[in-house]
Amino acid sequence: MKKVAVILAGSGVFDGSEINEVVLTLLHLTKASASYQCFAPDKPQHHVLNHLTGATEASSRNVLQESARIARGEVQALTELQAEEFDALIIPGGFGVAKNLCDFALQGAAATLDTEVKRVCTEFAEQGKPAGYMCIAPALLPLVYPAGIKLTIGNDADTAAALQQMGAEHIECTVDDIVVDAEHKVVTTPAYMLAQSVAEADVGIGKLVTQVLAWS
Amino acid sequence: MKKVAVILAGSGVFDGSEINEVVLTLLHLTKASASYQCFAPDKPQHHVLNHLTGATEASSRNVLQESARIARGEVQALTELQAEEFDALIIPGGFGVAKNLCDFALQGAAATLDTEVKRVCTEFAEQGKPAGYMCIAPALLPLVYPAGIKLTIGNDADTAAALQQMGAEHIECTVDDIVVDAEHKVVTTPAYMLAQSVAEADVGIGKLVTQVLAWS
Repeated sequence: MKKVAVILAGSGVFDGSEINEVVLTLLHLTKASASYQCFAPDKPQHHVLNHLTGATEASSRNVLQESARIARGEVQALTELQAEEFDALIIPGGFGVAKNLCDFALQGAAATLDTEVKRVCTEFAEQGKPAGYMCIAPALLPLVYPAGIKLTIGNDADTAAALQQMGAEHIECTVDDIVVDAEHKVVTTPAYMLAQSVAEADVGIGKLVTQVLAWS
Repeated sequence: MKKVAVILAGSGVFDGSEINEVVLTLLHLTKASASYQCFAPDKPQHHVLNHLTGATEASSRNVLQESARIARGEVQALTELQAEEFDALIIPGGFGVAKNLCDFALQGAAATLDTEVKRVCTEFAEQGKPAGYMCIAPALLPLVYPAGIKLTIGNDADTAAALQQMGAEHIECTVDDIVVDAEHKVVTTPAYMLAQSVAEADVGIGKLVTQVLAWS
């Protein structure tokens, strides 16, 4: 049975992981008879947003604890993740990826990675293990892989320009498709960067999971 | 296009709605070309649990605001829900249903319903509109429908006994199946009362959604 590590960034599209993308990822992995383990950084979220109004809340939340809401408690601290114990890596999207796993949402092309995220993603890359990044998570890729890494975040011009500036080759992609960098075994899909419904997101995420497992 | 109201109870299996069940419900509705609107009570959660440790947190969270995390902000206060504007009702599970929509988790067979939950569920029942309740949500049913309402929460003996005491007819059911009360157009499925994986929960939830839409 193939083992896939899934990195979460909290719980909720605006300050954490995009919940639908995570569940669809776990659904496709399970349907394909792969096993998975979720991980998340054990640190405070960048901030907490009221998902009804968009307002910033005064309170603080922990990325690992909130990620546990999606994973029904079955999530481990990112420091526990060793790439050699897994066949592949998948990172779903959500603004939390660009706020808690790196600071792309704040710094754009000048973004830097969380230290543990950098260690883990680099391990998978250096060990030649396949990886799937969806939605805004491909913003991590230029900080992990060599210049020229092929990826998509859909078709948002500003985001694509920032990623190109960071060294990536951005390729426009529809919500129901994937972009494959076969040399680096990296697959990306726009998911909720473009999806108008959960069923739309499901198609691209299903293809991403299939490609990741085909390489594993 | 059929319109389905979905009632949420927060975000997270232990103090809110079971996230996987909600996403799978929305996925099946969307794949079946039905539309949906999520609703939740605008009130404080019964309590907040750390989903990593199970510990009770000192902080307070609002059921509607947390539900918005799953629904990407697209959730309305339960007071806005009028049954005549919808073809059917679905209530996913999670302990939050038994803590925030009623107090079954605390009172067992002596449980009472949140006032707005009672109003809404009764409207759907009295208008003869179909309803799907999954996981622990069937605990609401004896407080809405006449004695003898057929339902399942899987096979947990204590929970089943409490529901029988409340007047329901409990029918044991496997995770991949549904229990149908054709007279009242109510369908139930165990979901995470029994599911060992998201793919297992998906099968029963898919059947529940299909039955609800077939009646609509």
